[in-house]
Amino acid sequence: MNPIKVGLLGIGTVGGGTYTVLKRNQEEITRRAGRGIIVSMIADRDLERARSFADSSVIVTDNAQDIVTHPDIDIIVELIGGTTIAKDLILTAIAQGKHVVTANKALLANHGTEIFAAARDKGVMVAFEAAVAGGIPIIKSLRESLTANRIEWIAGIINGTANFILSEMREKSLPFAPVLDQAQKLGYAEADPAYDIEGIDAAHKITIMSAIAFGIPVQFDKAYIEGITKLTQEDISYAEELGYRIKLLGITRRVETGIELRVHPALIPARRLIANVEGVMNAVVVKGDAVGATLYYGAGAGAEPTASSVIADLVDVTRMQTADPMHRVPTLSFQPDLLSDTPVLPMEAVETACYLRLQVIDKPGVLAEITRVLADFNISISAMIQKETGGEGDTVNIIMLTHKTLEKNTNAAIAKIESLPVVSGKVTRIRIEELNG
Amino acid sequence: MNPIKVGLLGIGTVGGGTYTVLKRNQEEITRRAGRGIIVSMIADRDLERARSFADSSVIVTDNAQDIVTHPDIDIIVELIGGTTIAKDLILTAIAQGKHVVTANKALLANHGTEIFAAARDKGVMVAFEAAVAGGIPIIKSLRESLTANRIEWIAGIINGTANFILSEMREKSLPFAPVLDQAQKLGYAEADPAYDIEGIDAAHKITIMSAIAFGIPVQFDKAYIEGITKLTQEDISYAEELGYRIKLLGITRRVETGIELRVHPALIPARRLIANVEGVMNAVVVKGDAVGATLYYGAGAGAEPTASSVIADLVDVTRMQTADPMHRVPTLSFQPDLLSDTPVLPMEAVETACYLRLQVIDKPGVLAEITRVLADFNISISAMIQKETGGEGDTVNIIMLTHKTLEKNTNAAIAKIESLPVVSGKVTRIRIEELNG
Repeated sequence: MNPIKVGLLGIGTVGGGTYTVLKRNQEEITRRAGRGIIVSMIADRDLERARSFADSSVIVTDNAQDIVTHPDIDIIVELIGGTTIAKDLILTAIAQGKHVVTANKALLANHGTEIFAAARDKGVMVAFEAAVAGGIPIIKSLRESLTANRIEWIAGIINGTANFILSEMREKSLPFAPVLDQAQKLGYAEADPAYDIEGIDAAHKITIMSAIAFGIPVQFDKAYIEGITKLTQEDISYAEELGYRIKLLGITRRVETGIELRVHPALIPARRLIANVEGVMNAVVVKGDAVGATLYYGAGAGAEPTASSVIADLVDVTRMQTADPMHRVPTLSFQPDLLSDTPVLPMEAVETACYLRLQVIDKPGVLAEITRVLADFNISISAMIQKETGGEGDTVNIIMLTHKTLEKNTNAAIAKIESLPVVSGKVTRIRIEELNG
Repeated sequence: MNPIKVGLLGIGTVGGGTYTVLKRNQEEITRRAGRGIIVSMIADRDLERARSFADSSVIVTDNAQDIVTHPDIDIIVELIGGTTIAKDLILTAIAQGKHVVTANKALLANHGTEIFAAARDKGVMVAFEAAVAGGIPIIKSLRESLTANRIEWIAGIINGTANFILSEMREKSLPFAPVLDQAQKLGYAEADPAYDIEGIDAAHKITIMSAIAFGIPVQFDKAYIEGITKLTQEDISYAEELGYRIKLLGITRRVETGIELRVHPALIPARRLIANVEGVMNAVVVKGDAVGATLYYGAGAGAEPTASSVIADLVDVTRMQTADPMHRVPTLSFQPDLLSDTPVLPMEAVETACYLRLQVIDKPGVLAEITRVLADFNISISAMIQKETGGEGDTVNIIMLTHKTLEKNTNAAIAKIESLPVVSGKVTRIRIEELNG
């Protein structure tokens, strides 16, 4: 089957990430989608930048209009931003019967109703996972996974810039202005940071989630918006003393009289998981009447995290276009005739760091004996503490953390150590998982 | 359009939850699914229990075979559990062309390949969101939302019983045995707790996720499984001293030579979000090459959380059966002609608790003046602290936390307080969100 053809409008940060990830992971993406997905046209005002990404087979233009009307293009990915040109291009693409994938939260929060209606009339899809919380699949979760629930409320840290600033203010006891400077230097905040620090960006996102959660039209103009510019380090630290963290939250809640829709700084109990979301990361908590609270956490911005959501939408549209409905999503995500025979490894072949606890007789030379055994099996130690066990006379606990080691070697070393006369009983081994993001 | 008809096999905890939530939220579920979803037959060995749930129009039987072969039934929900009778019933249902929704992780981890192939041959869906991590939508996220990514690893706290035991051991410095007793008394652990505490249940779940993440067949027999029964309070506390928490993790990871698939206790850095998942809650971290780490958190078991996932699958099947493909999932989750006109409330109509900071002249009667104003606007105080501002002579900071109050009243009270001669400058107001699960 021919690959599905994508026209990419705008190849800045997210556009570049989308092009790169689609290319790098094309084999797995094809196995999942059941069909190749290729970018065949790119529009950008900066032709040189566009050409620096594009393979030779890709048509590059500075006229986006050429792409949205081009008969070969199946799906338009709109990453230009703004609410004027982008809107025209999307409506033209829809009128031409093309599906649209967009990350444009400002546009959808303001003109979503018009755009969704146009798409519906033409029988095309408008997908926008990337518009809310970057790489976190919150749109699909709300739309397809929490469908059993009467949603009670949503609260989200949905602006990474603002969260970075608040995290830094708290952790380093700094005032707002120098932290904003730093965020700008690190590229986390725009030269004009108003959208992020005044809460407008967060309001776009919570407006979109509100519509999906409660089945109401998108109504950005009704949102209450208050940013973080007036927050002082003093209040952050008083809040901490009271057991709270201050976060910029987007909140929408159903109450008896209507729907609340608001963005403002809020004190959250420090013990809540979401209160511990730091730096540029995003998280959204959704409270449903059946499921209770679920939380979704991940990178809320950035080239490849946002591209992850753009491409998820592309795969969604492709599966829908390609498979018969009942086989739209393969049971194991990959097409069943394209499963891999990559072997599952036996535990002996797995490498992990380990926590080892040994009970040893406290006399000279014991440690030398043990570390000799570890060295013989190529196991190196990253930390060690010695503890009195208290009561057993001469016996002490030695705790060692190892660097990553093949399980087979750790097993052999443990067996050898347990056979030493100076070691009493069994060695306790618990594996360590750093889980680095 | 006629409602889609569901046959429910087993009306224990999850079956009861499914019946209850489907009925309670039927109006919203119908608006999302585009069609009603009703349970029209229930099979359970305990007829009395089944009848206690069932409305008079529901056919109740103790013979599940009657349901899986009944021509009126469109979807079978299998909540019997086990790998023998449940397997036969599911295969019979598939052979009859019925879609199947199941929460049976043991069955899928062991016989998934056979069942998925049968479903594929008959062109029906087998959906199993509820089989992994209860109410957390991790299956759909892996299958439909992270499709751009080369998945690197998944690590999950996917057994609430084991996590409850480890949380209690750490927080209360208790050994394993009495905490297990307590878990059994609280209903968090079965009379025979082996599946949970020996890691078997977690291994079923990580086996299923492994297949979806890496496009390999389900291979439960290859999983390495080690439970928590040998963990001592001593090791938990040493780990803490070293900056780690011990959690029972299900882990699957792609390395150069193959796929790791394992369940065992692990030390995790205490600063990781997942290390702070306590009690019976579940969480899964997925590392993708594009998106980075995303985390999904929620209730991993229980009647209604698990029902939330069962019903999400029912809505998925119903949407697929009912709408033309391009309109399968409505853009805003609800059918566009069934949006609600519930009003978005003005901020003045919103109720929140607040943090208020005032700078006041430190002299007798000041506090009485301020609390009088608050009382006049019906605002009650839950906590108060007084702080020297340091340097400004007579001025002190007073911080008050209020109970929930109408924004309108808080605004009026603040204006009034700011006009008092003993108060200098503006009142700082930051709203409080408890975000109770």
